[in-house]
Amino acid sequence: QIQFVEDKQEFSRFPTKTGRRSLSRSISQSSTDSYSSTDSSDDETSPRDKTQVNVKGSSDFCVKNIKQAEFGRREIEIAEQMAALISLRKRAQSEKPLAGAKIVGCTHITAQTAVLIETLVALGAQCRWTACNIYSTQNEVAAALAESVAVFAWKGESEDDFWWCIDCCVNTEGWQPNMILDDGGDLTHWMYKKYPNVFKKIRGIVEESVTGVHQLSKAGKLCVPAMNVNDSVTKQKFDNLYCCRESILDLKRTTDVMFGGKQVVVCGYGEVGKGCCAALKALGAIVYVTEIDPICALQAMDGFRVVKLNEIIRHVDVIITCTNKNVVTRDQLDRMKNGSIVCNMGHSNTEIDASLRTPELTWERVRSQVDHVIWPDGKRVILLAEGRLLNLSCSTVPTFVLSITATTQFQALALIELYNAPEGRYKQDVYLLPKKMEYVASLHLATFDAHLTELSDEQAKYLGLNKNGPFKPNYYYEM
Amino acid sequence: QIQFVEDKQEFSRFPTKTGRRSLSRSISQSSTDSYSSTDSSDDETSPRDKTQVNVKGSSDFCVKNIKQAEFGRREIEIAEQMAALISLRKRAQSEKPLAGAKIVGCTHITAQTAVLIETLVALGAQCRWTACNIYSTQNEVAAALAESVAVFAWKGESEDDFWWCIDCCVNTEGWQPNMILDDGGDLTHWMYKKYPNVFKKIRGIVEESVTGVHQLSKAGKLCVPAMNVNDSVTKQKFDNLYCCRESILDLKRTTDVMFGGKQVVVCGYGEVGKGCCAALKALGAIVYVTEIDPICALQAMDGFRVVKLNEIIRHVDVIITCTNKNVVTRDQLDRMKNGSIVCNMGHSNTEIDASLRTPELTWERVRSQVDHVIWPDGKRVILLAEGRLLNLSCSTVPTFVLSITATTQFQALALIELYNAPEGRYKQDVYLLPKKMEYVASLHLATFDAHLTELSDEQAKYLGLNKNGPFKPNYYYEM
Amino acid sequence: QIQFVEDKQEFSRFPTKTGRRSLSRSISQSSTDSYSSTDSSDDETSPRDKTQVNVKGSSDFCVKNIKQAEFGRREIEIAEQMAALISLRKRAQSEKPLAGAKIVGCTHITAQTAVLIETLVALGAQCRWTACNIYSTQNEVAAALAESVAVFAWKGESEDDFWWCIDCCVNTEGWQPNMILDDGGDLTHWMYKKYPNVFKKIRGIVEESVTGVHQLSKAGKLCVPAMNVNDSVTKQKFDNLYCCRESILDLKRTTDVMFGGKQVVVCGYGEVGKGCCAALKALGAIVYVTEIDPICALQAMDGFRVVKLNEIIRHVDVIITCTNKNVVTRDQLDRMKNGSIVCNMGHSNTEIDASLRTPELTWERVRSQVDHVIWPDGKRVILLAEGRLLNLSCSTVPTFVLSITATTQFQALALIELYNAPEGRYKQDVYLLPKKMEYVASLHLATFDAHLTELSDEQAKYLGLNKNGPFKPNYYYEM
Amino acid sequence: QIQFVEDKQEFSRFPTKTGRRSLSRSISQSSTDSYSSTDSSDDETSPRDKTQVNVKGSSDFCVKNIKQAEFGRREIEIAEQMAALISLRKRAQSEKPLAGAKIVGCTHITAQTAVLIETLVALGAQCRWTACNIYSTQNEVAAALAESVAVFAWKGESEDDFWWCIDCCVNTEGWQPNMILDDGGDLTHWMYKKYPNVFKKIRGIVEESVTGVHQLSKAGKLCVPAMNVNDSVTKQKFDNLYCCRESILDLKRTTDVMFGGKQVVVCGYGEVGKGCCAALKALGAIVYVTEIDPICALQAMDGFRVVKLNEIIRHVDVIITCTNKNVVTRDQLDRMKNGSIVCNMGHSNTEIDASLRTPELTWERVRSQVDHVIWPDGKRVILLAEGRLLNLSCSTVPTFVLSITATTQFQALALIELYNAPEGRYKQDVYLLPKKMEYVASLHLATFDAHLTELSDEQAKYLGLNKNGPFKPNYYYEM
Repeated sequence: QIQFVEDKQEFSRFPTKTGRRSLSRSISQSSTDSYSSTDSSDDETSPRDKTQVNVKGSSDFCVKNIKQAEFGRREIEIAEQMAALISLRKRAQSEKPLAGAKIVGCTHITAQTAVLIETLVALGAQCRWTACNIYSTQNEVAAALAESVAVFAWKGESEDDFWWCIDCCVNTEGWQPNMILDDGGDLTHWMYKKYPNVFKKIRGIVEESVTGVHQLSKAGKLCVPAMNVNDSVTKQKFDNLYCCRESILDLKRTTDVMFGGKQVVVCGYGEVGKGCCAALKALGAIVYVTEIDPICALQAMDGFRVVKLNEIIRHVDVIITCTNKNVVTRDQLDRMKNGSIVCNMGHSNTEIDASLRTPELTWERVRSQVDHVIWPDGKRVILLAEGRLLNLSCSTVPTFVLSITATTQFQALALIELYNAPEGRYKQDVYLLPKKMEYVASLHLATFDAHLTELSDEQAKYLGLNKNGPFKPNYYYEM
Repeated sequence: QIQFVEDKQEFSRFPTKTGRRSLSRSISQSSTDSYSSTDSSDDETSPRDKTQVNVKGSSDFCVKNIKQAEFGRREIEIAEQMAALISLRKRAQSEKPLAGAKIVGCTHITAQTAVLIETLVALGAQCRWTACNIYSTQNEVAAALAESVAVFAWKGESEDDFWWCIDCCVNTEGWQPNMILDDGGDLTHWMYKKYPNVFKKIRGIVEESVTGVHQLSKAGKLCVPAMNVNDSVTKQKFDNLYCCRESILDLKRTTDVMFGGKQVVVCGYGEVGKGCCAALKALGAIVYVTEIDPICALQAMDGFRVVKLNEIIRHVDVIITCTNKNVVTRDQLDRMKNGSIVCNMGHSNTEIDASLRTPELTWERVRSQVDHVIWPDGKRVILLAEGRLLNLSCSTVPTFVLSITATTQFQALALIELYNAPEGRYKQDVYLLPKKMEYVASLHLATFDAHLTELSDEQAKYLGLNKNGPFKPNYYYEM
Repeated sequence: QIQFVEDKQEFSRFPTKTGRRSLSRSISQSSTDSYSSTDSSDDETSPRDKTQVNVKGSSDFCVKNIKQAEFGRREIEIAEQMAALISLRKRAQSEKPLAGAKIVGCTHITAQTAVLIETLVALGAQCRWTACNIYSTQNEVAAALAESVAVFAWKGESEDDFWWCIDCCVNTEGWQPNMILDDGGDLTHWMYKKYPNVFKKIRGIVEESVTGVHQLSKAGKLCVPAMNVNDSVTKQKFDNLYCCRESILDLKRTTDVMFGGKQVVVCGYGEVGKGCCAALKALGAIVYVTEIDPICALQAMDGFRVVKLNEIIRHVDVIITCTNKNVVTRDQLDRMKNGSIVCNMGHSNTEIDASLRTPELTWERVRSQVDHVIWPDGKRVILLAEGRLLNLSCSTVPTFVLSITATTQFQALALIELYNAPEGRYKQDVYLLPKKMEYVASLHLATFDAHLTELSDEQAKYLGLNKNGPFKPNYYYEM
Repeated sequence: QIQFVEDKQEFSRFPTKTGRRSLSRSISQSSTDSYSSTDSSDDETSPRDKTQVNVKGSSDFCVKNIKQAEFGRREIEIAEQMAALISLRKRAQSEKPLAGAKIVGCTHITAQTAVLIETLVALGAQCRWTACNIYSTQNEVAAALAESVAVFAWKGESEDDFWWCIDCCVNTEGWQPNMILDDGGDLTHWMYKKYPNVFKKIRGIVEESVTGVHQLSKAGKLCVPAMNVNDSVTKQKFDNLYCCRESILDLKRTTDVMFGGKQVVVCGYGEVGKGCCAALKALGAIVYVTEIDPICALQAMDGFRVVKLNEIIRHVDVIITCTNKNVVTRDQLDRMKNGSIVCNMGHSNTEIDASLRTPELTWERVRSQVDHVIWPDGKRVILLAEGRLLNLSCSTVPTFVLSITATTQFQALALIELYNAPEGRYKQDVYLLPKKMEYVASLHLATFDAHLTELSDEQAKYLGLNKNGPFKPNYYYEM
């Protein structure tokens, strides 16, 4: 077993990532189970202690139960139905732009990621994969992947398992990775620390999360070009506005609340809040907004009253936080109505006051991710996901899946770009993937049966644009 | 074991009800499982062969597993959070208007019904209960109820079990029912046939379903007053428009489809279709409507193009039927896009062509209630609930739950009304519960924190209305 | 000059009609002016004192200024662009179903009515026409009509002019009407009183307004069959819900208010209120509702808080009344914010407290139909149309125009039906025009490019319907 | 009379501005008339030839008719009702931050600008004003202003009048301006050319339009600091998205079109297009979008099909262009339906093909700003504002008014900032007014009765923000 104490401590300095992972441990049951999940839940043996063989006779993988591969395949098939990534796979397959690429990946392992990995393989790459989060792996999907790819991941890994899996990905005989796809920087960091010689030969790193990218550039030790696929106005906007508009509906999945006529307060009217508010208003809820920023507050002329939480705390049926730290205080929770719902769609796991964990309040788990917090007088407040991010916790397809649907394409494009870039195009720095955005957007359009108009020569000239784009100024992507 | 062949044949003449029940048998897994359900799913012993005792030491019940009572209690607590019925319980509890009432009930057994039953008990009634559908019972809820009420129901009853449970309810020593609450008429019919002497002493029947009421009045043998709580403009409107607007969201629960930008055709622009269309449009779908009736078609000026299904069949991502028989033909399904979704929100189970069940099409169950139907060329169409009613099948809280939320109050009010009515007020006929609608609506208003305005004397006089209502003309309820 | 004192007194017993007309007199300037109106406004000569000749050389008409005919023709052309009535004209023109009909009409004279009248002529009828309201006539349109039809109407008639015009229509040598089209019953009443012998020979009366129909049937002296084209669920619904949804936008025309973020209270959540609320919410206003009826209040789960007016009177920016008498009291007006707007979309002219007409409040007319009512402390409340019906007063195309767009078709159909009905089909009674509704709706559908689906034989049989309709039960129309 | 040929030619190189002004000349009647306008329309005497005296006995102004001052005052009072600018006036009045400022202004002269000018005066400034557009002046408002401010402007100025008015503002004995407020750069340019010595002593220029700012900086001869109040993400967003959402409703004012069920195509899904689409969808229209940019096209998942114009040109009822040059071609116009509407909400005046001005097409003006273009076969297409910008032409309160409502505050703030800035803070360059945006937004919030939440110390620290803002990063304003 690997001892890597020093680094684990170092990681704890990256709060978001570690925070997310640690908190996840308290989840006793995930909602990401697929149809067959119950079959395996009884099996308590650690995957590391099992001997499993896939249909090809290989044992170079480690998943919960390879026999679930068929169920996982169906989940992947569902994901393929919607994936614009398939368009990319079809367009680029004959060119094999990733022929010769040896990619180690460390991401959430879901049906959507599986579509990505299998696309990378279809484009010519060899892949080895592990999970970036100890709880988010869909076991069946991992099993399905393991039939052809070296996957090391299961739901409910221990911290030690987590690093063991990463090491299995990287440290294998006769195979040296030349590309990294990372989400959070753990894989990158591990390779940098443990296998510096391998790391130096990497041609490029594609990194998903802000945390991961920060780590890279702050460390100042970046010796390979990296591409940040997360930071662009457009992607942020799509992820936040559009995805939240869809994923707030998970509130219904979880609590069966009827939206019509309910009084809801959304704390924060940024992109996430805007998405939530739009969906809730559309479904007949009466929505209030709290804001600290006058510009966002003014945008609430979309149709929402801007109030202070205290003004309406006694009336609201639902509080949704889309902001930051301790937006809902214990004092406010004390004044809420019996049966009201509190949940967090925001950026951090600390939006709802931690002081709900006190002896005088009783917690009763009524469903997966749903707790009744019971006051001494019998009042119940329904708390979702223990105050953690709702859209990461409470549904089969939360925000991050939709996000990944888009993300996976950026990741694939970034890998292709970095792998095929001529020497010198990218230095040892962190890059954005800006103009490719339009290409990704256009891949999506096929899914929507959308027909783009082409500029006439005259119009292009009038506008000073190339007929094939890019259509947006640079600053649009770099903001 | 009871043989009741003759009646079963007779029942098969009531297509909706029987059809619904028979089709239900093919459901291999329901989505109505609560948090603990997986624990019991392994248990293959028939409840009829088990010996169970509740906390009071009684064995006068038959449920899947009495040990699940605690989990069921939590579901009931969730339901109580929202139930306007609790208002009624509080208002009428001191009066005990059902003191002396002995009610046999045959309804769906869900958390919402449990709130009703426990309300009836709180108002003074004794109750014995059974399920009106062999598959809709929430086992944990039944267990929770069985701690204090004689309940005979579990999910997955056989036809024989179904009648055995009804008989257990009715045929018990030292207890004769004087009121019936029925949904579909099976209980009523059984009592009429098997226990005519008991039946004659019944003071009133409250019947939920249209089928059940038809049966009663058509038979012409109604010897007790009955009240139909289903047929009123208002209730229809609430159930259809408002509930469908909410329950169409189950489409997302089931398929994880993103609504934004999807092309959806809704077949039928009646109240159900209107509700679906409004919600889908609000969430960013592009919605088309098909209609046969010019008046409904004109109402689509709400914002929807009225098309013939054939015009757009090749483009749509989702078909939702809200009408009648064979609206979507096999020929049309042949022309749909790969990955498109087909589901049924309508009134019957025959809206989608049965010809999908042919050898050349492969069915692959990918989740509970979700099948991929695969054409020889690999095209997949996602069929929900095998074409049966989506809102009865695909969610924890489908339309019928919300409906029951309202319905249970009507049922309670109707029971109170019939039980307390002076001799002669009701004859041996089927009655509606019209004016009480306003009372029920006003009970609900508390839930919405809504404040009614009162007419001034002058205004009441001007309008020719009593200040306390009713505010609607008679025909409003009787339409 | 005609003396008809007795009847005028009698008419004053019909409050709505007379009230509307009398109040209209205080309008100093109408917004119904067309492009050219200013040219004629200087002309103070009474039309009765002018000698005018149309292009055909006839003087059998009396309008403000025949020279405005060209401008009026353009208004009619605009109206024709939208009129589904044109479909009827085209369909029925070859059949000339009104050949031989001699119709006297008394309606609002607007571009839309002009389309009706010219359609009647195209279908074979001879027409003479007058106005049912002393202020609603569009002078240019009347001029355009007068080129081919005997029209007697202008904006700003005196009471005496009003009856003189009616008499000119009826009392003409060598021409006896055999059909009446009336709106309000004034024409009918005049003929009944003054020309009883002509009246007896009338084959049918088509009456638009509720008032007019009441008059007929209450009088008990109806000696000819009459058809009420106003009272049907469908028409009410279209007029109220759909038209109000559009015409509330006139609030912007009149006051330039920005809807986004404004707090609006809509008094009354009937069909009119529902239409207003839907439009305002859609445009970003924050909408509250007041209601007396619990059922309507419950329907506000469409997305509106139900409040008492007093709760929010200090906060709202706009009050819209959609109800009845004195909904907004002087006391409440005293508490409104500076700059708030008050208007009336309801059924009567008395929804806003008359006590605004007191010496301590200053009225300042800032635009046509817009008064600032100024409190002693300088606070201004913006009152529209002096509290009268906004949609009758404040726009070029108010509700009643859209209504008439539909109405004119009903009127035409009713005239055709009555004129061609075999002896005995209609008695001396008031009839509705029920089933034709579907025909009218289908005429409209062409305008919307809507494509109806046809029932298959199998479906028709299943539903028990004729493939060509009617699709609605009788009670749908008769409610 | 002033000859200034050389400069006029130079101006013609600034296409937007000059184009706008020239095109305006063809407007025969504006819709910006206030209540009293008709009184003065007969008066053909040039204001320059009249002798007028205001109530103070001064003749230092030149307007159409000083007697209309009272009517103009009412328009200003209406504008004051809504103006957040009044908040600024109240807050800053005691400080007189503009004491000593001598401002020459050249802007649209409307009720909203009047509120600005009178605010500047209230804050201590002396003002002289002229119009930046020969047709946009509201004569009554100019008259009202002229009672206390030296205003030189009327509707329908000639080119020569235009420069004469500017000169009157600047060239007056005993008064030298020290601040400029300009919209389009004409005033600035004139001063720079004709009065270079005065110009050098100017302390700052506040410029509204992009054109004007370009002129300044491109010329490279900027010898005073200038502030561009137009270019910020936020302002663009408010002006475009929010204002267009409101001003598209003018389509109804102008054409009386019913939105429900109409098929509308919006060309361009930028901010302007998004605003139009949102409003139209909300009102029941069926909206299509055309786009050239895949990112914007993808955002149409808001609920709109992305099509090529040719695909639907035969079906649509309304075309709204929100883009650039020649989006709608003559060929497409040929294929439109009879009665369809074409209008322009975009950025330029050339979006609709100029080839409609041909002999074979007849133009018929049916209302102010509304032409029927008639094809040889009788087909009519309704063209608004001759294809020029709808929201500048077709309503009393078009986009630019709402825009100015916001703009005027920026202008006032920029004037205060520049006038009071310590020496050296601003160089001879063009500045933005970024962070003040939040201050302006917060002034607006009072209008909306919105209550901002304040950050706690802990939260501010967590977020790394000052509790009083700014809350947005710099790039947010500078994009």
